[in-house]
Amino acid sequence: MRLTMMTDYAMRLLMYVAQHPDRLCTIAEVARVYDISEAHLMKVTHQLGLNGWIETVRGKGGGMRLAHPPDRINLGAVVRSMESDFQLTECFGSSNQCLLTGSCRLNGIVQDALQSFLRSFDAHTLADIVPPGSGGEVGRMRERTLTRVGKVRVA
Amino acid sequence: MRLTMMTDYAMRLLMYVAQHPDRLCTIAEVARVYDISEAHLMKVTHQLGLNGWIETVRGKGGGMRLAHPPDRINLGAVVRSMESDFQLTECFGSSNQCLLTGSCRLNGIVQDALQSFLRSFDAHTLADIVPPGSGGEVGRMRERTLTRVGKVRVA
Repeated sequence: MRLTMMTDYAMRLLMYVAQHPDRLCTIAEVARVYDISEAHLMKVTHQLGLNGWIETVRGKGGGMRLAHPPDRINLGAVVRSMESDFQLTECFGSSNQCLLTGSCRLNGIVQDALQSFLRSFDAHTLADIVPPGSGGEVGRMRERTLTRVGKVRVA
Repeated sequence: MRLTMMTDYAMRLLMYVAQHPDRLCTIAEVARVYDISEAHLMKVTHQLGLNGWIETVRGKGGGMRLAHPPDRINLGAVVRSMESDFQLTECFGSSNQCLLTGSCRLNGIVQDALQSFLRSFDAHTLADIVPPGSGGEVGRMRERTLTRVGKVRVA
């Protein structure tokens, strides 16, 4: 069982942006810091913007910032908005052809389990998962790692 | 978010076999009844056997049966044994390279959510999801469907 890459990356992007409340962050720097695909992050950023979790400023010097304070961004709401579907089994989908539909009780049990899963996230906000410390903490960790493994990167 | 095909098919296979306690069931008939891949079901059956949920009898007239009564087969235990991993986000995996590891609290929150999800299944056994009615109910539904849509199949 896995969450989609969209949700995984969305959480990490929000955590990074939350650590830099004093400035706009760019997709390029988030991709560099986490060493993940810039193309994928563009999709994630677009979706986060559509869902109202971040605001983006276009043009030179542009970037993104949180649309709400971290303690107003509920993680359950973020997960629900980023997962494309919750078709845990075939009988959840619109193309369901299982012949047991209507007579078996698996669907109800899986639905209950899914709601329990999401309620766990509902109990937390972005403020609960932002690493402690000042603004550039993640960036500094990245720099230390790059120095340690001897990589050279050009932004 | 999705469960793997292994878990989805395992649940359906167990439900079918539970409906026929008086005889051995074959992979071919389960594949035909649910209209799903026989090759995939072979892998599922093998795994269910390894995990001790079913017993298989080889040779002509062979097939499979439940290794325990349906009310002794816990769904939480089945899900745990069939899912290849529960790496809901990158930081769950052995190849985790996220630089926030050790300082962020997302992993703990995702772990709690996963445990809530599994506990929901722990509260149920196979007996809870077997459709009511006598033995060949699924097979009869299949026959009715095939008749209705005008398909002709050779076993």
